[in-house]
Amino acid sequence: MMTTKFHGVIPPVVTPLTTDRKLDVPSYERLINRLIEQGVNGLFVLGSSSEVAYLDDESRGRVLAEAKRINDGRVPLLAGVIDTETQRVISHIRQAEEIGVDAVVATAPFYAVTGLTEVENHFRALHEATSLPVFVYDIPICVHIKVPVDLMMKLGREGIIAGCKDSSGDDVSFRRLAMANRAAGSPLSLFTGHEVVVDGAYMSGADGVVPGLGNVDATNYVAMYKAYRKGDWETVRTEQDKAAALMEIVNAPQGVVGPAAGVGAFKTALQLLGVIETNTMSVPMPTLTGENVERVAEVLRRVGLLA
Amino acid sequence: MMTTKFHGVIPPVVTPLTTDRKLDVPSYERLINRLIEQGVNGLFVLGSSSEVAYLDDESRGRVLAEAKRINDGRVPLLAGVIDTETQRVISHIRQAEEIGVDAVVATAPFYAVTGLTEVENHFRALHEATSLPVFVYDIPICVHIKVPVDLMMKLGREGIIAGCKDSSGDDVSFRRLAMANRAAGSPLSLFTGHEVVVDGAYMSGADGVVPGLGNVDATNYVAMYKAYRKGDWETVRTEQDKAAALMEIVNAPQGVVGPAAGVGAFKTALQLLGVIETNTMSVPMPTLTGENVERVAEVLRRVGLLA
Amino acid sequence: MMTTKFHGVIPPVVTPLTTDRKLDVPSYERLINRLIEQGVNGLFVLGSSSEVAYLDDESRGRVLAEAKRINDGRVPLLAGVIDTETQRVISHIRQAEEIGVDAVVATAPFYAVTGLTEVENHFRALHEATSLPVFVYDIPICVHIKVPVDLMMKLGREGIIAGCKDSSGDDVSFRRLAMANRAAGSPLSLFTGHEVVVDGAYMSGADGVVPGLGNVDATNYVAMYKAYRKGDWETVRTEQDKAAALMEIVNAPQGVVGPAAGVGAFKTALQLLGVIETNTMSVPMPTLTGENVERVAEVLRRVGLLA
Amino acid sequence: MMTTKFHGVIPPVVTPLTTDRKLDVPSYERLINRLIEQGVNGLFVLGSSSEVAYLDDESRGRVLAEAKRINDGRVPLLAGVIDTETQRVISHIRQAEEIGVDAVVATAPFYAVTGLTEVENHFRALHEATSLPVFVYDIPICVHIKVPVDLMMKLGREGIIAGCKDSSGDDVSFRRLAMANRAAGSPLSLFTGHEVVVDGAYMSGADGVVPGLGNVDATNYVAMYKAYRKGDWETVRTEQDKAAALMEIVNAPQGVVGPAAGVGAFKTALQLLGVIETNTMSVPMPTLTGENVERVAEVLRRVGLLA
Repeated sequence: MMTTKFHGVIPPVVTPLTTDRKLDVPSYERLINRLIEQGVNGLFVLGSSSEVAYLDDESRGRVLAEAKRINDGRVPLLAGVIDTETQRVISHIRQAEEIGVDAVVATAPFYAVTGLTEVENHFRALHEATSLPVFVYDIPICVHIKVPVDLMMKLGREGIIAGCKDSSGDDVSFRRLAMANRAAGSPLSLFTGHEVVVDGAYMSGADGVVPGLGNVDATNYVAMYKAYRKGDWETVRTEQDKAAALMEIVNAPQGVVGPAAGVGAFKTALQLLGVIETNTMSVPMPTLTGENVERVAEVLRRVGLLA
Repeated sequence: MMTTKFHGVIPPVVTPLTTDRKLDVPSYERLINRLIEQGVNGLFVLGSSSEVAYLDDESRGRVLAEAKRINDGRVPLLAGVIDTETQRVISHIRQAEEIGVDAVVATAPFYAVTGLTEVENHFRALHEATSLPVFVYDIPICVHIKVPVDLMMKLGREGIIAGCKDSSGDDVSFRRLAMANRAAGSPLSLFTGHEVVVDGAYMSGADGVVPGLGNVDATNYVAMYKAYRKGDWETVRTEQDKAAALMEIVNAPQGVVGPAAGVGAFKTALQLLGVIETNTMSVPMPTLTGENVERVAEVLRRVGLLA
Repeated sequence: MMTTKFHGVIPPVVTPLTTDRKLDVPSYERLINRLIEQGVNGLFVLGSSSEVAYLDDESRGRVLAEAKRINDGRVPLLAGVIDTETQRVISHIRQAEEIGVDAVVATAPFYAVTGLTEVENHFRALHEATSLPVFVYDIPICVHIKVPVDLMMKLGREGIIAGCKDSSGDDVSFRRLAMANRAAGSPLSLFTGHEVVVDGAYMSGADGVVPGLGNVDATNYVAMYKAYRKGDWETVRTEQDKAAALMEIVNAPQGVVGPAAGVGAFKTALQLLGVIETNTMSVPMPTLTGENVERVAEVLRRVGLLA
Repeated sequence: MMTTKFHGVIPPVVTPLTTDRKLDVPSYERLINRLIEQGVNGLFVLGSSSEVAYLDDESRGRVLAEAKRINDGRVPLLAGVIDTETQRVISHIRQAEEIGVDAVVATAPFYAVTGLTEVENHFRALHEATSLPVFVYDIPICVHIKVPVDLMMKLGREGIIAGCKDSSGDDVSFRRLAMANRAAGSPLSLFTGHEVVVDGAYMSGADGVVPGLGNVDATNYVAMYKAYRKGDWETVRTEQDKAAALMEIVNAPQGVVGPAAGVGAFKTALQLLGVIETNTMSVPMPTLTGENVERVAEVLRRVGLLA
């Protein structure tokens, strides 16, 4: 059931901001409508690419409610419920339930040093607290613990979690997870979060992709997923190479790190493409300006997205 | 001014919980009153030892308001305003301002990968948002970035920050910070967070200590600080050795990590000493039980705190 | 030229030991002959899987000389010249030159904290010291620095290095390297060291694989490489899945880490398959025994390699 | 016995090089004689500060033999026997035994991923291989594993190791080690390797210090140690502050990291002071030049060592 509902291309939607750092609703409408028109299979709102960690609770609610309104049931809507520990995550789940979403996406606990006992307790408590499907957002670069294959499968077999978005960068582990999942009757929907190696994830048997780069252009990812479903690997590879060439926008800016570079590049490209109004980033991140904007534009020109 | 106000022993007060994980107010009263009677120079509420990351916003408010009421102005009250990024931290600052505190304590941003530009922007934004003194909680094990000496001093000289609690475990850096601070006319109040090497921090010129272990027994730390102010180094060393012997309670539990071990040991000791009612820990942490309680008791007996 | 010479399946040959930890020559002969009969395109001797770090200089020389003798020119022979810093690596290059090999494989400098200036200087100095092709062994888990794409390409374009074995586990970086290499006219031969995601590396455009698991059975890797050259991706994927199932031998042992588990599993499997005499590991590693041997055997039975 | 023999100030002697990177013997004589005249209690040769990882076996032998000749029995001579794994370390022990030293100093195994079983096996094998006292060089920044207090004490109580040089930067662990050692009857001689927090280590009960900075000027460390033995803590603190001010030479150079900065600053200072001929560093490290030399000189002038 999960696997039929959640699959394919589910971009983590960026949060367009006005210059005074409020949600820019008209830009958000253009962005979401464009994604759905490009054929995505779902929307993931309030993930890392949405600058979720930078938004206070009220802003989180506004972003999610507007996404819900704009999407209007066209594709499944997944909500990030990212916070330090269980009780705080449950608060966000309550907010998501009130707004109405199709699934929630939670990381392992972070800030405090944490063991696997805590990780397991955490997801069990989230599952008990909601009837929504719970996805694991496996992102050790942010939470500094990896959810191991064995624990992921234990939680999957028991129906505690519905799937995972793997942003671990550990493709060896992803292969092992995909094998174990298949052997267990595929209780989990498995998504990769790594834009430039989706072809490898599909070779491993991934159910889909959550590509931040999909904000800028989801067509490659949609074409890649369709080719994958048909077993047309040559197209998978070709489309992946195109997406990888575009992904160089995140390596183009200089003197910036983390989401200031990555999400900053996505927003800058979207602004250059006329989809969103500004490339403003949340405090305390610097917004890309001057030469860095030009570097992003240069990549867009190289791949033919900009004249 | 800062240095005369904030100095000495300022324990990060643990949050006693009932078995159903609400704030246990009578236990909290006994704990805070005992600390003040033992002679502490301030109270730090909603820090890591308070399980701040595990408390939702409402619980945070309750903990802080009760601490305010119980303290009743006897000693300076510092409030942790710990959250992922600037906007969320400012929300907590607003709450702290409404309740009324003497200073706020914030970490560097966390969750997202972050550079020093963001760290600097972050503390500048916090300073602009409040007239309260802002302390840096330098805790790379939780936030995965260290605030370097140069940036700390830059923010100190400009009056952006009032001081820091150094929980970095990097005593070389602390020495350099203390030297640079002295050379700049001591704009910062410098506290160490490492219970067993406070003597070394005093040799470096620390203004005080924020000892989690002080919850269990603050008398050594108070005696050590007084001796330090008099230049009685032999007493400093002797008291430090006593405190270090007691600190073995955090290494005693087996099969637990992070605050489940450390704060868990503090709470278990406080329960064994009759100060608080239960040693219950927040979800998703396991609470110490059975053999692990006995291991903590054994250390208490060894140092003569328990019969 | 390099790309025509070095490509395909080049296993890092394990070093069979007698129970008193000398090179077991008859076992070594059986192992190398079997690999060549299974169709490998080269042999990599004195890499991590050869326990190179555990062998003194005399043992290194014996292992390499015996490999040279047994191979007898049938396939290209690559020699690891792994040591802490430049001068020591050059000593090993001299030894390899005297014995006679087709290429040498060196890591970035290790032990001392090192910057990219040192990494660049290091490979330039190695190139100046020898006329043999120099391959970069990119293995941050051992040397704690990653050779970045830009530096790798700079050294490749200038002819300083001939290629790399990527054991970084960073498939995003590998994709970027493959793209950059293609754009530069493919000066580098690119090998992946990760046994279970070779299909993804081929999608990225890898020239081959250096699979430790190939010691146990190279037939899947040989079939996978041939299918890759023909564009038969379905076979690539199927063969990869088979190899991944066998690779579970390295996750089977309990209570051991690093090469004691990985190389230990390879040796144990080879012993169970009758290829080598003992599964003895170098001091100070524990050799797999009892239950751990049985766990490896169980995987071999599951995949049909053992009756 | 050990504790009476090995104690006090034992600098890790840098290796002066000629511009063509051979041992500069006249400079080495001046350096060693000056250290002994300044009152050091021993010499540690072939440690990290000696650029041991950069020297081939022949150079190592020459450095050690010259140190032996120059010292001529005036103070105890400790030799680093640093290499990746047991068998290679034993080769260096043999060399040290032939030349004749008073103790050998070995790190935990490195390069390969290693568990505590291997660390324990390693030191047991070294002890079996020699009758010389074996010191543990605990330096996780280089070998990426820390020798925990429990294992250190187990090896100490059994007489496997004679002591340790703690360069872990973990002063909490050092305190715990010192406490455990005292409780066990002080089987271990405990040295700190951190130049700017030796006062704290003495408060913990250290037996001495191995200060790289002592190469530049050992007089502060000698005075500090003497004051420590007399319980004159005020002098300990004052001398430490002076040494810490001088230590800023290692933070002065820009654009260099690791020993290229640290040992580079020591050598540059020694050259400026006329003790050694050149500040040449081993390949592949850059040698400090131009502005960076001036930055080191500036610190020397500030503390009054240079006119």
